[in-house]
Amino acid sequence: MCELLAMSANTPTDLCFSFTGLTRRGGATGPHKDGWGVAFYEGQGVRAFHDVDASANSRIAEMVQTHPIKSEVAICHIRQANVGSVCLANTHPFIRELWGRYWVFAHNGQLSDFKSRPGIYEPVGSTDSEALFCQILNHLRDHCHRDSPTEELVDHLVQLSAGFSRLGVFNLLLSNGDWLFTYCSTKMACITRRAPFGPARLRDADVIVDFESETTPDDVVSVIVTEPLTTDEVWDIYQPGEWRLWRRGEAIMQGQAAER
Amino acid sequence: MCELLAMSANTPTDLCFSFTGLTRRGGATGPHKDGWGVAFYEGQGVRAFHDVDASANSRIAEMVQTHPIKSEVAICHIRQANVGSVCLANTHPFIRELWGRYWVFAHNGQLSDFKSRPGIYEPVGSTDSEALFCQILNHLRDHCHRDSPTEELVDHLVQLSAGFSRLGVFNLLLSNGDWLFTYCSTKMACITRRAPFGPARLRDADVIVDFESETTPDDVVSVIVTEPLTTDEVWDIYQPGEWRLWRRGEAIMQGQAAER
Repeated sequence: MCELLAMSANTPTDLCFSFTGLTRRGGATGPHKDGWGVAFYEGQGVRAFHDVDASANSRIAEMVQTHPIKSEVAICHIRQANVGSVCLANTHPFIRELWGRYWVFAHNGQLSDFKSRPGIYEPVGSTDSEALFCQILNHLRDHCHRDSPTEELVDHLVQLSAGFSRLGVFNLLLSNGDWLFTYCSTKMACITRRAPFGPARLRDADVIVDFESETTPDDVVSVIVTEPLTTDEVWDIYQPGEWRLWRRGEAIMQGQAAER
Repeated sequence: MCELLAMSANTPTDLCFSFTGLTRRGGATGPHKDGWGVAFYEGQGVRAFHDVDASANSRIAEMVQTHPIKSEVAICHIRQANVGSVCLANTHPFIRELWGRYWVFAHNGQLSDFKSRPGIYEPVGSTDSEALFCQILNHLRDHCHRDSPTEELVDHLVQLSAGFSRLGVFNLLLSNGDWLFTYCSTKMACITRRAPFGPARLRDADVIVDFESETTPDDVVSVIVTEPLTTDEVWDIYQPGEWRLWRRGEAIMQGQAAER
């Protein structure tokens, strides 16, 4: 399987602390050693890093841990391969352009008997995850348009996610750079940090950060993961079928998909 | 304007030497300080790095210079902004998926009065370059198909390039990961290195490499640039309107577009 990490913030914020915790699980404190990737939105642009090396030993991951890249939306994935060989083309997050925006997708899970339908977007690699991403974008292109209200897009995403969850495990992170859609099929947790900020200690590395020294009183930063990253904070656990839409650090919409 | 660098090789080869020379021109020996980017194909996958910092001072560029990333096709660009602000969305190379492959594009030049037509591929940023790339892919999707012979694709690319050249400067690097298409509107040069390999000295940095110690006798590596990178080698200068198609280090097709 794999692990997911996302961030939504109301001001450009670096991911160094959370990324350091997550990437330890890629070959050090966890078995997710079959590559990793991270995408940072910077305005409409996306800065992505992908590597097939274990993140705990990756020179590129080390650079991302120590070089603060500030973003309002970021999506990260560390991989333990099940479907598809270990290669760059199979490394999340996947990126495509739709309606003049980059869309970024990462998925935890595996679907049995998933057959993707032909469409404009096609997978490059051999993972079911990338095929699912293409199917989502093909569906949105067919059923919505560039000016569709967010509520309408989210309704499609919830229906699609609930459908995919019936075929297997489908924990999802998806962003168009404006909002971040998160869907929990089996495991997802989140935390929103805002003033008064305090310290936090990573579960996977001997690192403590004092957010107060790194933030302003107006900052709101939410982190969404498949497994909580810190030991001394209270994480909010998603229920199976629960989804949340994040924008600028806040969950602006949330709900529960219909019974499976 | 900007500068371009590409590599085509018959074995996975790193770009550290050439990249080091080129990135010096981004704020040290040259004025191209408005960001840089590089994309490396690795199988069907693409590993890309983009930055809005001047490449001569970029922490990410420093990592790419010193961390050998091996690839058979790579495309690099350093930017001096003319059309479009300095931001990540305007930073080459641009990447899109077509027919289940990633296509990578970088452009040197500027076109006056270029109006892109609506199509499936849309620019995210505001450069004429990205709009040209989208127009090329929309044209290929409309006029060719996934199994079109390379000769047919190249014929379309030559016609499109010659047409764009009539509107301004259009020096082009374009790859689908299999081949690398290069078109010279005003300036382009190339060199093919093969056994017996010798040393080479960068024009822009006090660096000498002895390729013999880094290669095997069967290696063939070609480098294509807008301005030669070394002082002690003979570069082959493209004529205006000349194009070459590279695969596995060799120019497998070449020609001259019709008179402008």
